[in-house]
Amino acid sequence: MNLQTELMARLDAAEAEMIAIRRHLHAHPELSFHEQKTAAYIKQFYQDLDCQVHDCGTGYGIVVDIDSGRPGPKLALRADFDALAVQEDNDLPFKSQNPGVMHACGHDAHTAYLLVLAKNLIALKDQLRGSIRILHQPAEEVSPGGAKSMIAAGCLDGVDNVIGAHVMTSMATGTIGYHLGESQTGRSNFTVKFIGKGGHASMPQLANDAIVAGSYFVTALQTVVARRIDPFATASVTIGSFDGVGSFNAIKESVTIKGDVRVMQESTRKLIRAQIEQIIHGVEAMFGVTAQLDYDDNYPVLVNDPQLTQQVVAALNQAALPEISAVTDYGPQDPSEDFAYYAQQVPSCFFYVGCMPTDHLTHPHHSPNFLLNEKSILIAAKAAGTVTLDYLLH
Amino acid sequence: MNLQTELMARLDAAEAEMIAIRRHLHAHPELSFHEQKTAAYIKQFYQDLDCQVHDCGTGYGIVVDIDSGRPGPKLALRADFDALAVQEDNDLPFKSQNPGVMHACGHDAHTAYLLVLAKNLIALKDQLRGSIRILHQPAEEVSPGGAKSMIAAGCLDGVDNVIGAHVMTSMATGTIGYHLGESQTGRSNFTVKFIGKGGHASMPQLANDAIVAGSYFVTALQTVVARRIDPFATASVTIGSFDGVGSFNAIKESVTIKGDVRVMQESTRKLIRAQIEQIIHGVEAMFGVTAQLDYDDNYPVLVNDPQLTQQVVAALNQAALPEISAVTDYGPQDPSEDFAYYAQQVPSCFFYVGCMPTDHLTHPHHSPNFLLNEKSILIAAKAAGTVTLDYLLH
Amino acid sequence: MNLQTELMARLDAAEAEMIAIRRHLHAHPELSFHEQKTAAYIKQFYQDLDCQVHDCGTGYGIVVDIDSGRPGPKLALRADFDALAVQEDNDLPFKSQNPGVMHACGHDAHTAYLLVLAKNLIALKDQLRGSIRILHQPAEEVSPGGAKSMIAAGCLDGVDNVIGAHVMTSMATGTIGYHLGESQTGRSNFTVKFIGKGGHASMPQLANDAIVAGSYFVTALQTVVARRIDPFATASVTIGSFDGVGSFNAIKESVTIKGDVRVMQESTRKLIRAQIEQIIHGVEAMFGVTAQLDYDDNYPVLVNDPQLTQQVVAALNQAALPEISAVTDYGPQDPSEDFAYYAQQVPSCFFYVGCMPTDHLTHPHHSPNFLLNEKSILIAAKAAGTVTLDYLLH
Amino acid sequence: MNLQTELMARLDAAEAEMIAIRRHLHAHPELSFHEQKTAAYIKQFYQDLDCQVHDCGTGYGIVVDIDSGRPGPKLALRADFDALAVQEDNDLPFKSQNPGVMHACGHDAHTAYLLVLAKNLIALKDQLRGSIRILHQPAEEVSPGGAKSMIAAGCLDGVDNVIGAHVMTSMATGTIGYHLGESQTGRSNFTVKFIGKGGHASMPQLANDAIVAGSYFVTALQTVVARRIDPFATASVTIGSFDGVGSFNAIKESVTIKGDVRVMQESTRKLIRAQIEQIIHGVEAMFGVTAQLDYDDNYPVLVNDPQLTQQVVAALNQAALPEISAVTDYGPQDPSEDFAYYAQQVPSCFFYVGCMPTDHLTHPHHSPNFLLNEKSILIAAKAAGTVTLDYLLH
Repeated sequence: MNLQTELMARLDAAEAEMIAIRRHLHAHPELSFHEQKTAAYIKQFYQDLDCQVHDCGTGYGIVVDIDSGRPGPKLALRADFDALAVQEDNDLPFKSQNPGVMHACGHDAHTAYLLVLAKNLIALKDQLRGSIRILHQPAEEVSPGGAKSMIAAGCLDGVDNVIGAHVMTSMATGTIGYHLGESQTGRSNFTVKFIGKGGHASMPQLANDAIVAGSYFVTALQTVVARRIDPFATASVTIGSFDGVGSFNAIKESVTIKGDVRVMQESTRKLIRAQIEQIIHGVEAMFGVTAQLDYDDNYPVLVNDPQLTQQVVAALNQAALPEISAVTDYGPQDPSEDFAYYAQQVPSCFFYVGCMPTDHLTHPHHSPNFLLNEKSILIAAKAAGTVTLDYLLH
Repeated sequence: MNLQTELMARLDAAEAEMIAIRRHLHAHPELSFHEQKTAAYIKQFYQDLDCQVHDCGTGYGIVVDIDSGRPGPKLALRADFDALAVQEDNDLPFKSQNPGVMHACGHDAHTAYLLVLAKNLIALKDQLRGSIRILHQPAEEVSPGGAKSMIAAGCLDGVDNVIGAHVMTSMATGTIGYHLGESQTGRSNFTVKFIGKGGHASMPQLANDAIVAGSYFVTALQTVVARRIDPFATASVTIGSFDGVGSFNAIKESVTIKGDVRVMQESTRKLIRAQIEQIIHGVEAMFGVTAQLDYDDNYPVLVNDPQLTQQVVAALNQAALPEISAVTDYGPQDPSEDFAYYAQQVPSCFFYVGCMPTDHLTHPHHSPNFLLNEKSILIAAKAAGTVTLDYLLH
Repeated sequence: MNLQTELMARLDAAEAEMIAIRRHLHAHPELSFHEQKTAAYIKQFYQDLDCQVHDCGTGYGIVVDIDSGRPGPKLALRADFDALAVQEDNDLPFKSQNPGVMHACGHDAHTAYLLVLAKNLIALKDQLRGSIRILHQPAEEVSPGGAKSMIAAGCLDGVDNVIGAHVMTSMATGTIGYHLGESQTGRSNFTVKFIGKGGHASMPQLANDAIVAGSYFVTALQTVVARRIDPFATASVTIGSFDGVGSFNAIKESVTIKGDVRVMQESTRKLIRAQIEQIIHGVEAMFGVTAQLDYDDNYPVLVNDPQLTQQVVAALNQAALPEISAVTDYGPQDPSEDFAYYAQQVPSCFFYVGCMPTDHLTHPHHSPNFLLNEKSILIAAKAAGTVTLDYLLH
Repeated sequence: MNLQTELMARLDAAEAEMIAIRRHLHAHPELSFHEQKTAAYIKQFYQDLDCQVHDCGTGYGIVVDIDSGRPGPKLALRADFDALAVQEDNDLPFKSQNPGVMHACGHDAHTAYLLVLAKNLIALKDQLRGSIRILHQPAEEVSPGGAKSMIAAGCLDGVDNVIGAHVMTSMATGTIGYHLGESQTGRSNFTVKFIGKGGHASMPQLANDAIVAGSYFVTALQTVVARRIDPFATASVTIGSFDGVGSFNAIKESVTIKGDVRVMQESTRKLIRAQIEQIIHGVEAMFGVTAQLDYDDNYPVLVNDPQLTQQVVAALNQAALPEISAVTDYGPQDPSEDFAYYAQQVPSCFFYVGCMPTDHLTHPHHSPNFLLNEKSILIAAKAAGTVTLDYLLH
């Protein structure tokens, strides 16, 4: 029995364990950067295996190394473990026990598959080459998320490549999705405060109306995507918050506006930032207001290394696992993902694991009714395991 | 000694009484429609004079009739008595004893002069002709104010004309101001909610951005005053509140916008309302949002009857009171005033009594540091008394 | 028979002469600054009276002095004599003989009355005091008009006051109109060219769309009147021309925009100019375009001296001429008038002479169907004559 | 010697003939739908070969069939032959002899290579299978171009696939470019006239300012691309013409605006049209103007059939012609191309032939200085010939 066959058999045997872990985590979700008990649970898992566990970064990041003792590349596998500020609306035996917090994005499944996969890779490590670094990452849901700090703390030192996976409720269970190159949007956020001069509604000439300045800003901002960006490029600029709350009869002194920018190229990000700054200067000049801008370029574009990704796809196709019916290009995705920070540092691949419930009643990620087909946990473990063996041994 | 001389002498003698009343009221201010103790104080004042007092309207309105028993016209004198939600910042022996409430607009002085003037007119009533109706009005500072309800309750039944006065800290003490015709702005207020469709910032095509619709609304609204109004007319349209508060990465489903309209002609008011409604329909059509509009035409334009006002001015000029150095056209005023409701019903005159402190350190009305020169109380009493005698006897 | 009676009798006798002159001028209209034959006609008229005629200014301006030889003030009377680029659409025996040119504003009537009035004042000059200066002005219809150059050439040297009149088709014949103080708007004009970068419609990112910049400019411009001007002040800002003519599939490199500003206070003019310049700078900053601005403050606000105007009104009221049924405050007027330049230099009065046709079928000034009641010519002469005698002799 | 080798040898031998034809056409350019002499020249070329020539469509379209007499597919080869309204600024012996008209896009080269290729395919036709249809198309540069009418006249009857090529000055000579699927933008054009009410600049309240309406339209239009389109989709909306030409002091009654829309999906085209119509309705409602819209969906998206295109690429790669250094995915292109009409009817492939001058001094297509490396003519002929043989014989 070769190693791939042996690992798959072990994972098949461990399916109940994965599901149990996932259900435990699901019942005890914790918010980003507050995952104290989750991290303790993960550490205990490895300590029970007599494994060395390293804290990593300013949050609850955990690093575990699986070293074959033989030369070869170092591959990192990453799973995130934070939950969301959502009140679960599912009726499950393992429903969230923490009010207002829920694993509504599937990070419980990510952690469950990676723990059990790691356990079995540890058991087989003498038959491997090179080494595997397991990255349990906190705080994927916030900006800046947990990846940045783990990288700063050295979690990628010596690592050649990183592999990550995300369950995806919009994809049929049994399907693996991928995309070459730019795969999930990069993001920037900004807050701009326009300061004019307050006054009485009946005497506009004595005031300087910040709501008017802010409104013209929003209309001028539409030209960024409409006129400044190559029609073949991807970009969105959204004003998500316009705080000009006041009373009928007073002219507002200031408004505070918050924006969100998405791009698929770092060059587009720079261009948009320059344009927004230019428009803000224009509003200052036009209306005689003062602007205070806080601009934060956060999540990078998630770029899957084409070669590594094709290697991942080839490995999965060749393995012909019975649970995987298709490996397909899923196209670029709108949301941002902090796996992108790893991919900025070393060639990486992030793939998607279909987890659509069998009844096809899909609720979107982050919904209070989010549900996943637990079969996807085994599939994720098998897919990541297959890719790992292929990577290390071929 | 003629009646005018006698009334003036009586008022001179009662100056300390007026100041004492004003200081008592100043120390015990009450908010609009909550003036329970102030109303009781006023009623007690008249009951001590064996005078009949009538409650009037849904608030604490008070009506007192002074009837000469002889034929002649019926003149109403009106003073307001509510205070503001302002924390007094003056260091006075009679400083407000009610935290967060202050007579910061001079209604204490209005009530003080009118009580003492009424008392002395009552004393002289056998020498008069016709009758005088005293209107002590609550709640001038809010919309709809106290006037509306008192009128509905009949306070103007049989009244030929109404006279009112307001102290004015921007005018030198000793100056009386007036203006013929349209004198203070009429006002309308509106709230419009634009409802689009919420969504994720990275997928604008699936949402309908209410902040964008609201911002274009504000910019289009600028055309109302700029293009639709006769340049010789008076109008302002202010958006005082733009509530589009949300988060960076979500597209807002709805925004709520509050506006304030000021005019000097009722025809302008109608035209602006029609234009705003038209622009709102345009925003609905343009952006596919739904609008909910709540439009409230409240304070009328305050129109001083030209003939009555000229009669008031002539009486004051002819009386040549030593305390009054000038009677001048003070021009139209931006703020609105609910005396306008009386003037809609019967020909009326509202005039201004300078109350600038002797050190010329003027703080605007509604300021926590608002102060008035108490000499203005006697001046107001003498002016209103002079006008009353002139009106009834000539 | 006193002088007033004598002058009125002379004017009555000369009515046919006035009408004949007016009809001659009407048949031979000339455009502004091209009034060669009209000027020659006027000069010949005075030369036939053995009067000295002085050319004045860079156009065809004419000055004639009527000196009583006795001490006294010097009063100027001004009439304009240019016509408009309008093709007359009336069927009259004295219809315009010059294609595309028409006396459609009544300057023919102005010149006719002033010529005949001057002739009769010359005849009576020995009975006068002080002196009269007749100003026949060309080019009132264009900017800068004829007044500016005549003033620069000294036409107001030694002049104490100026009187002017304009026939007004919207007023009943027999009515004289006036207004104290600011009476006709001041005007500024500007041309702004926004220069971006041309390009192919399908590649906006390589171009800089000047039509977009110009359109946002127009929308931002609405805030000037809506938010920057005291609601009690008068202002209008109009973009009369937006030249962005191009082809479907090319992005315009530049647009040229022409604007018109009207005010009733010179302070408002300055404020608006500063705001427009600020908005243009804002457009430059916002869109990265370059602006070329040509701003021309031309016609001043026409300010009638209150004292002189009241003197004019009093004289007319006292004269009780049978042809004048009313002397009324006609209110401020929208159009601009280069008589304003005289009024900037010396206290002046410009009044209106009703010329509505008897059938009340009024066509506005500058219309191809403009018609005037010729009775207004005699009325203008009598009114100006009455005012002149009153001015010089009282 | 196999057929491919023979055809290539024939084309090598005919290079001078191709260049001569291209220079003749270059010297005698004709505008779209006025290509009378060009069409006559083409027809004469075939008649000299004893070939039957068919007129096709409402312009000067020409169809020639090359039938092997043996069963097999029918492939169409298309070249366009119209020139542009550009004054040539090159100093060439064969410079344009027609003032203001120039082959500035390379259609002279297209026609030259196709004539000579057709001639040699005719010579070899007994060795072929199936048949070849030669399409000489007029009027590619205008909308609707020549393709539409030729298709309506039946030029694709019985045709299985169409192949076309365009020289490309931005690509190195020797390079062949292609793109699978959507390759050149689809286009729509519209003209909208907004009709308000004219008036005098000083009286905006009596008019309805069409320039203001048009300007707000342009700003609202920015939201179409910025907010309505999937950020992963391709779209541009350009206003190429804003005709609001007028005078300073008059409010414009109407403005005429011309727009250009580019898309890469027909669904995007529909969505944009609906949005533009919605915004126009919004402008009507908002400003009380009337809109007249003329909307023309013209050029389709050019969609290269993926399978046929991969077959073309494979044939070129396999042939390993010494003149072709690379066959690369050139990505989607901004401009529109009326070859798209053929590709709507039958699976088609349009590829690019690098024609950059050897000195790398590239001037864009449509420039008065446009130049091409004449070596590209032979390359185009060899590429199209290779593809044709591969298509018919394998």
